[in-house]
Amino acid sequence: MTAYGEMSKAQLLEEQKSLMKAYEEVKAKGMKLDMSRGKPGKEQLDLSMGMFDVLPVDHEMVGEQGMDCRNYGVLDGIIEAKRLLSEMMECPTDNILIYGNSSLNIMYDTVSRSMTHGVMGSTPWCKLDQVKFLCPVPGYDRHFAITEWFGIEMINVPMNENGPDMDMVERLVSTDPAIKGIWCVPKYSNPSGISYSDETVRRMAALKPAAEDFRLYWDNAYCIHHLYDDDQDVVLEILEECKKAGNPDMVYKFSSTSKVTFPGSGLAALAASEANLEFIKKQLTIQTIGHDKLNQLRHVKFFQSYSGMRAHMRKHAAILRPKFEAVLNVLEREIAPLGIGTWNHPKGGYFISMNTMPGCAKRAVALCKEAGLILTAAGATYPYGKDPEDSNIRIAPSFPTPEELTEATEVLSLCVRIAAVEKLLEA
Amino acid sequence: MTAYGEMSKAQLLEEQKSLMKAYEEVKAKGMKLDMSRGKPGKEQLDLSMGMFDVLPVDHEMVGEQGMDCRNYGVLDGIIEAKRLLSEMMECPTDNILIYGNSSLNIMYDTVSRSMTHGVMGSTPWCKLDQVKFLCPVPGYDRHFAITEWFGIEMINVPMNENGPDMDMVERLVSTDPAIKGIWCVPKYSNPSGISYSDETVRRMAALKPAAEDFRLYWDNAYCIHHLYDDDQDVVLEILEECKKAGNPDMVYKFSSTSKVTFPGSGLAALAASEANLEFIKKQLTIQTIGHDKLNQLRHVKFFQSYSGMRAHMRKHAAILRPKFEAVLNVLEREIAPLGIGTWNHPKGGYFISMNTMPGCAKRAVALCKEAGLILTAAGATYPYGKDPEDSNIRIAPSFPTPEELTEATEVLSLCVRIAAVEKLLEA
Repeated sequence: MTAYGEMSKAQLLEEQKSLMKAYEEVKAKGMKLDMSRGKPGKEQLDLSMGMFDVLPVDHEMVGEQGMDCRNYGVLDGIIEAKRLLSEMMECPTDNILIYGNSSLNIMYDTVSRSMTHGVMGSTPWCKLDQVKFLCPVPGYDRHFAITEWFGIEMINVPMNENGPDMDMVERLVSTDPAIKGIWCVPKYSNPSGISYSDETVRRMAALKPAAEDFRLYWDNAYCIHHLYDDDQDVVLEILEECKKAGNPDMVYKFSSTSKVTFPGSGLAALAASEANLEFIKKQLTIQTIGHDKLNQLRHVKFFQSYSGMRAHMRKHAAILRPKFEAVLNVLEREIAPLGIGTWNHPKGGYFISMNTMPGCAKRAVALCKEAGLILTAAGATYPYGKDPEDSNIRIAPSFPTPEELTEATEVLSLCVRIAAVEKLLEA
Repeated sequence: MTAYGEMSKAQLLEEQKSLMKAYEEVKAKGMKLDMSRGKPGKEQLDLSMGMFDVLPVDHEMVGEQGMDCRNYGVLDGIIEAKRLLSEMMECPTDNILIYGNSSLNIMYDTVSRSMTHGVMGSTPWCKLDQVKFLCPVPGYDRHFAITEWFGIEMINVPMNENGPDMDMVERLVSTDPAIKGIWCVPKYSNPSGISYSDETVRRMAALKPAAEDFRLYWDNAYCIHHLYDDDQDVVLEILEECKKAGNPDMVYKFSSTSKVTFPGSGLAALAASEANLEFIKKQLTIQTIGHDKLNQLRHVKFFQSYSGMRAHMRKHAAILRPKFEAVLNVLEREIAPLGIGTWNHPKGGYFISMNTMPGCAKRAVALCKEAGLILTAAGATYPYGKDPEDSNIRIAPSFPTPEELTEATEVLSLCVRIAAVEKLLEA
């Protein structure tokens, strides 16, 4: 295979002809596959079926603190659930609040509260002329959707192999008091799979924000979501680092068991300093009668301990590993020799992030769609859906089977090749 | 027994002496009982233990619409849960959104969204100088806490035996564009047990608000929570009445199964016009990945049908009836002849509302507390915790046993008598 960049126009035209022929054949097959979201597969969900058995009729529904988990009471989570999630989140139980079923909802709620009530005494953001967030890109579309919904201006910060560009982050955060937050997925980040280096975490923790109410929005979505037993990323614990750096209140850490047990029926939690939690609890007492304690108890009984949870995650990894590898193998074979794309080799998380030649992502994703393969919309990994390079494609390998993934990635590769040839012929 | 109002000063002093002696004896017994909240009793919770059996390991977790309820997807509730709750809420399924576990949380969220995003295109309330709510009193403290939290000015509206004073409501709502809502518990209201008459509902539905974004906040908390089989209140359906009156978008109706299955582990829902729901769903897609569909499925499987749910509520009634009657019997015996208090005889709901002589509620509740009986704080049933008459006491009979309730109401009666004698002696 000749790299496309080295091909003559005539060679490119020849290549285009043969690619289009292959594409017509693919379309004729009538594929129908949705790879747009990081959705666990059925086999993964089956791992947690024991959840339905751990609270049988004759079970004692009384929590360790003596309260009947079937009734009102306990606003911030039963202690045994806090203990389990505190190990998962690497924070003391005193720094944890258990919420409902969605960490995204906690993030929404955190921004919403800051709009109406500020942050620990600061001016409510809705009273300010301008509020801005830093958005490491590519990133998670649902983060960006929250800040966009609240009219918060989003500023792209490039990701490199150690995390966000910290020179840029430091410069902006220390000079602009309108910057109130940064969206971070520190481990196996969505979509690039990158984990923040120790230096990145330390520099984050040591930021000197111009805004007193600046916070790191630390979405630890994939904290225990490794693909390999023997090759795992470790990220420094941010609450501890912030404390050491003299910024104990500067971070909110979010996590959930959505991709541990059941998406939509898991537990979500927030970790932060006690001063932050004290402020947040004032809202919580107004906002709800409490979260689902029976589901908290169900999780605790199912896992028994954090080591039970880790063992459970190894079963997830065994299912996900061949799926990631199926995608990577095809990309390696079909795209690597052509010099028209790069991608990460994640050790965990839910995504493979591919960068095509500039200006090719939208076209490739559209071609895939026409062939029956739905990918995350091109641009979605950037604020306002605008990828300035039009090159990032997020691949979500968790839901289809490895066989489907091989086929789907072949289709994707074909579409990326077509888009690349078209782009080169334009030039 | 002589009515206190007819006693001479000497008789009152004599009465006081004997009451204080009785009070010292009561204190010596060391009672310890919390009647502050409308919490279901253990026997009621036991009614729903079948909930833990309906989703066994080998159960099909696929909903009617073909989706795996264990996975992401379906933002606004599975159709079978909508169907069940639409019967409970007396609205078409198209007008229902299923939320999480707390209708109070939906109300909070509704006010919060109005603060930041307005209502169907209106100016966000946080941009306005003044926002006001009407608060029928006595009412539900947690409603008032929400509006207070958002800095919304609350205006008391007296309740009469047909619901809120509609002359006052009509006058205020039609003239003041800062009035954006009214808190309503239309059936077996908290705490007065009153159900709105047909005329009240029709006048509510026919309001001509000065504010385009005025809404009825219709908390149908006790829609199927009757105490008697043969004597039940019926309240006109408000969405339908608003539609007839040409105000289809003027109401949000809230409900939950907190006091049907498990408080904190039930289903909560919102009913409103399709135009309202369309606006709300824009937020919902940003706000959450969806609610707990497995708990929705669990509820559907447990009740099988709405008639199953109604049969279930009759079992609740059989448990609650003797508790309400225990309280009422003691009040009838101990207070009625003395002319120092009035109370309702609710046909449903969770509370008995007692009015002492003006200026006696705080003192009576404080005396109860000293004797080991915790009641809802006096004043709590009014905005800002301020009962202008200092006379309303909310009695929550659901949690203790009938025997405990008899004893507790005897203590309460004693304390109300002491407070009344003190007040009369002051005069």
